[in-house]
Amino acid sequence: MSVSDTDLANAIRALSMDAVEAANSGHPGMPMGMADVATVLFTKYLKFDPADPHWADRDRFVLSAGHGSMLIYSLLHLTGYARPTIEDIRNFRQVGSPCAGHPENFELPGVECTTGPLGQGLAMSVGMAMAERHLNAVFGDDLVDHRTWVIAGDGCLMEGINHEAIGLAGHLKLARLNVLWDDNRITIDGSVDKSSSEDVVARYAATGWHTVECDGHDMADIARAMEAAMAADAPSLIRCRTIIGKGAPNKQGTAATHGAALGAEEVAAARKELGWQHAPFDIPDAVRTAWLSAGSRASDLHNGWKDRLTSHSEAAEFKRRMAGVLPDGFSLDAYVKGLLAEPKKVATRKASEMALEAVNAALPETIGGSADLTGSNNTLTKGLGTFEPADYSGRYVYYGIREFGMGAAMNGMALHGGVIPYGGTFLVFSDYARPAIRLSALQRARVAYVMTHDSIGLGEDGPTHQPIEHMMSLRVIPNLDTYRPCDTIETAECWELAMSRKEGPSLLALSRQNLPQLREEASENRTARGAYRLRAAKGERRVILIATGSEVEVAVTVRERLEARGIGADVVSMPCWSRFDAQSAEYREDILPDVAPDTILRVSIEAGTTMGWERYTMVNGLRFGLDRYGASGPASRLYEHFELTPDHIEARIIATLGE
Amino acid sequence: MSVSDTDLANAIRALSMDAVEAANSGHPGMPMGMADVATVLFTKYLKFDPADPHWADRDRFVLSAGHGSMLIYSLLHLTGYARPTIEDIRNFRQVGSPCAGHPENFELPGVECTTGPLGQGLAMSVGMAMAERHLNAVFGDDLVDHRTWVIAGDGCLMEGINHEAIGLAGHLKLARLNVLWDDNRITIDGSVDKSSSEDVVARYAATGWHTVECDGHDMADIARAMEAAMAADAPSLIRCRTIIGKGAPNKQGTAATHGAALGAEEVAAARKELGWQHAPFDIPDAVRTAWLSAGSRASDLHNGWKDRLTSHSEAAEFKRRMAGVLPDGFSLDAYVKGLLAEPKKVATRKASEMALEAVNAALPETIGGSADLTGSNNTLTKGLGTFEPADYSGRYVYYGIREFGMGAAMNGMALHGGVIPYGGTFLVFSDYARPAIRLSALQRARVAYVMTHDSIGLGEDGPTHQPIEHMMSLRVIPNLDTYRPCDTIETAECWELAMSRKEGPSLLALSRQNLPQLREEASENRTARGAYRLRAAKGERRVILIATGSEVEVAVTVRERLEARGIGADVVSMPCWSRFDAQSAEYREDILPDVAPDTILRVSIEAGTTMGWERYTMVNGLRFGLDRYGASGPASRLYEHFELTPDHIEARIIATLGE
Repeated sequence: MSVSDTDLANAIRALSMDAVEAANSGHPGMPMGMADVATVLFTKYLKFDPADPHWADRDRFVLSAGHGSMLIYSLLHLTGYARPTIEDIRNFRQVGSPCAGHPENFELPGVECTTGPLGQGLAMSVGMAMAERHLNAVFGDDLVDHRTWVIAGDGCLMEGINHEAIGLAGHLKLARLNVLWDDNRITIDGSVDKSSSEDVVARYAATGWHTVECDGHDMADIARAMEAAMAADAPSLIRCRTIIGKGAPNKQGTAATHGAALGAEEVAAARKELGWQHAPFDIPDAVRTAWLSAGSRASDLHNGWKDRLTSHSEAAEFKRRMAGVLPDGFSLDAYVKGLLAEPKKVATRKASEMALEAVNAALPETIGGSADLTGSNNTLTKGLGTFEPADYSGRYVYYGIREFGMGAAMNGMALHGGVIPYGGTFLVFSDYARPAIRLSALQRARVAYVMTHDSIGLGEDGPTHQPIEHMMSLRVIPNLDTYRPCDTIETAECWELAMSRKEGPSLLALSRQNLPQLREEASENRTARGAYRLRAAKGERRVILIATGSEVEVAVTVRERLEARGIGADVVSMPCWSRFDAQSAEYREDILPDVAPDTILRVSIEAGTTMGWERYTMVNGLRFGLDRYGASGPASRLYEHFELTPDHIEARIIATLGE
Repeated sequence: MSVSDTDLANAIRALSMDAVEAANSGHPGMPMGMADVATVLFTKYLKFDPADPHWADRDRFVLSAGHGSMLIYSLLHLTGYARPTIEDIRNFRQVGSPCAGHPENFELPGVECTTGPLGQGLAMSVGMAMAERHLNAVFGDDLVDHRTWVIAGDGCLMEGINHEAIGLAGHLKLARLNVLWDDNRITIDGSVDKSSSEDVVARYAATGWHTVECDGHDMADIARAMEAAMAADAPSLIRCRTIIGKGAPNKQGTAATHGAALGAEEVAAARKELGWQHAPFDIPDAVRTAWLSAGSRASDLHNGWKDRLTSHSEAAEFKRRMAGVLPDGFSLDAYVKGLLAEPKKVATRKASEMALEAVNAALPETIGGSADLTGSNNTLTKGLGTFEPADYSGRYVYYGIREFGMGAAMNGMALHGGVIPYGGTFLVFSDYARPAIRLSALQRARVAYVMTHDSIGLGEDGPTHQPIEHMMSLRVIPNLDTYRPCDTIETAECWELAMSRKEGPSLLALSRQNLPQLREEASENRTARGAYRLRAAKGERRVILIATGSEVEVAVTVRERLEARGIGADVVSMPCWSRFDAQSAEYREDILPDVAPDTILRVSIEAGTTMGWERYTMVNGLRFGLDRYGASGPASRLYEHFELTPDHIEARIIATLGE
């Protein structure tokens, strides 16, 4: 049997429709529609080595239209990755199979990022292309010289995030980024015409992209378009005109192929139409051999790269960065010692900048940035240089007013590897970036979010800019470490932990207003415990004041007043809930003993929603916070207005104790 | 003194810089830069009547670049609105002044929507323009014939939301929408060139917009551009080339004028530059008279409109809708009675569709839609018709894959008045729409969010599509009523409450999977209580099972097993936390008596994060849920996998009770 490219593509089609059929769940339309394009990419242009999915200089392939997951599972299987096996594919969408409903980077090497939430794959690919250019600038063509390829659908291109992503990519002239647009004119609700009248190609051109079109079912035409894209000096949009569900004779070209199994009858008809008379999940030897041969295309390239790495003067540093290992002995101890010697009363956003000076000096892999709030977020430290087309070695990114795009780009950078991204905006606008923050956590990406202006303490900008529910709504995101430090030392500890955390993101909520340095010792990183006793009751402990961030100062004042009345009170600073919850029962019992409120009254103070604080105060404790929107006015007036002052809190506690 | 347009504009400039100076906080650059454009708009084209800010047929003016709030405060004051007074303006950004840091619709009539979170004003204006066309189609030109004008800055145009908004507006050919782009080439971080290389005009043109340009400091040129925009048969982008901070001789054209007071010296220099030698907050009589005259321009038009309304056959219905009053006797009792007679086992998303059939029949003011998930969200009922350029009387909007744009458009519709919008997506994508949901709540807008596929119960789509933290993260948004109904009857009750709630948004979280009808009586709307006893313990109450949505079925099964063992157990269905918390202490004590866990054990069951449930279970109660990401597999397998089955829950309860 001589094997044509169409046979190769039909193997994808067959696996995709068979797997969806077996699961009776999934999306056959996209893999069948893009099978030809993917075949050309994987057999001719994509640089990859299934024998080593982690090869640092591989091209990155992102299936932004993640619902078409059978496309990538088919490709990984056929080209010879260890997983998925044919058994994995038979178990598509079943508990335990790495072939999940949507591609998950933590399940399968070769899946570069987790996609499904539309538009984000495309936006992450921008970050991957940024990381590539940066590492290329640092380590040279010998070690870093690859492309980022994306398959995106109409959904990805309609989401707002794609505007931020392409705006950034166009501005940064990321010529190594090529987006294959699956232009099938179909969305779930029917024809694209139902909801869009846009000239997508013109829009991309307006943001500085190179554009090219092709017939997505003509192998030669696809190749021509890809070569044009690779030759361009700008990021490229390749418009591939396709038929969704191509090969399913009665359903192709309609939304009926998008998100449901074709049904036994239509699958049989498709087999006939495609001339694919093999059993379900059966790949004939000749086709398998041809696909495996495509998979081993780059092994010589890979060997050459390994040789260059061996003899490269920066080999050790390159390997360290790509492995995501921090330099030996990374710590901020010296900086913290300086703070103990000379305490500083500064906003924690400023404290963050001070810590970042030390972090950025110690870790050349960091890439900072802000969504147009550099001076407010205090994210820029000396000497980073600007990441820009003229010099990709710069370590600071002006993301523009693109919070979501920034978050997604940071995810892409972290997943590319070799860099550690951090970026800033106001805490209230964490809502704009929230879908990316969730994906940082789900994908276990080391990303640091710098979220300043973290409460009504920001003052006059008023309720649209004052976070109320944000801390709590971020704490509930699984695998996100959310910090709200109270002073310079805790802020430094947060940075140390964020940088050291390989398996997930961290978010720092920082004050606009100045705060005193409250910590008086730093023999260990106490923030690592999540919560700790900052001040201990002098006599019998009658009250425990639990506070975070700017309200720890308030708690310390309240404690002094209670002690002056002879009421013993601890202050527990609790910068990170998730870390505290992970401590031993003994530690937690020591900090928050399980006794009735009439023995020890627990009190929480945080200038945000009180919902959720019952976990630590118990239901019968006291919770000071804000369960309504804020107001516009100077910060100190707002604390009075919303009764978050020592006077008010002291009075409530005294009343509760019945003293 | 003869008064020129420039004098009028300088009055805005003077008030803006003086107010920011007095507050030592705020944004003078934008109002000073756009003063000329705003003067032309308010003195020549904008249809408004300060004597009646609620005139239904007024043009809507949206300051999308909300940080430039002194622009709108100046305009409202100068044109003769009752508020803000000059005293209000003197107290700009102080607690108690309606002149908040950013414009707030609930503080000042004339402020059509709350802006500051960038891009959302523009996106809301699309909804306003949609409401106008819809009401025009229903009630005719005599009653509804107005425009929506927007001032937007580079920040608005860089945010992803603007892409969704302009895509929708271009597709819907909203020719009554005119956007004035303050093209000053400056962002907070410096020149726009730092982060964007986009041809904005070409991009708008690519999405079906009419575009025109003008010199934003040449009154005649501005007027020409506005007239061109008004004559176009598409939404218009008017590019106004301006100088930020125009008039401040040493700082204009730089980011230094953007977000801080100019300083006494520069204010003095600006007075000289502008030829404005009046004291702070002093408006000379001639200028005041000219502005007031501009403010009364439309009073004849307004009187004519009133006359037409008086004689209009649909006057009563028009007034009812614009007042936001539901038709007399609106209720779903008849539909609910039918359910009691013939119980239905359906998914709550289907139950929602069934309730919506009754809602949409009873309320002609509803406008439904979905972000490309119509068949999944079950948001389309019979006979609504499609809202489209050929027929704006249609009541169903195909929003496309634009969750955030949909949310913002719904806010705009609700604030325009005369319509009640609802729209659907998956609950997990509430994250995409979250900034709009927050603004619904902050703005007190009657919007209903239909969020289906509300847990791991959606099955195979896996963790990217399975909400975990979403219910809790929505519950903490102030003034949002978040519902998770358990069956057909609760779902109907939710819809009744959502439609009846004039002062804020509601969000319904609905299941993909079928659920039994558990309610056996419906003498009152029990969901209005937030939580209620669905099943009562037969003997002594030893356990209270608190559950929501699809897990109420699980709780009912667990209760039956406990009762079979002789352990008395209540089932409390808790569809809405905020409503329960608002009940009397007596009611809450009846449902959840404050006794120790060894007397009555409280148990929560919800297939989402357990954080926060301590509020109702107390710390020593039991909480069943999911504090990690889900997995891909059939729903029933996932409930087993994550131990959310009656078997597992029963066993844990028995172990805890020590029986």
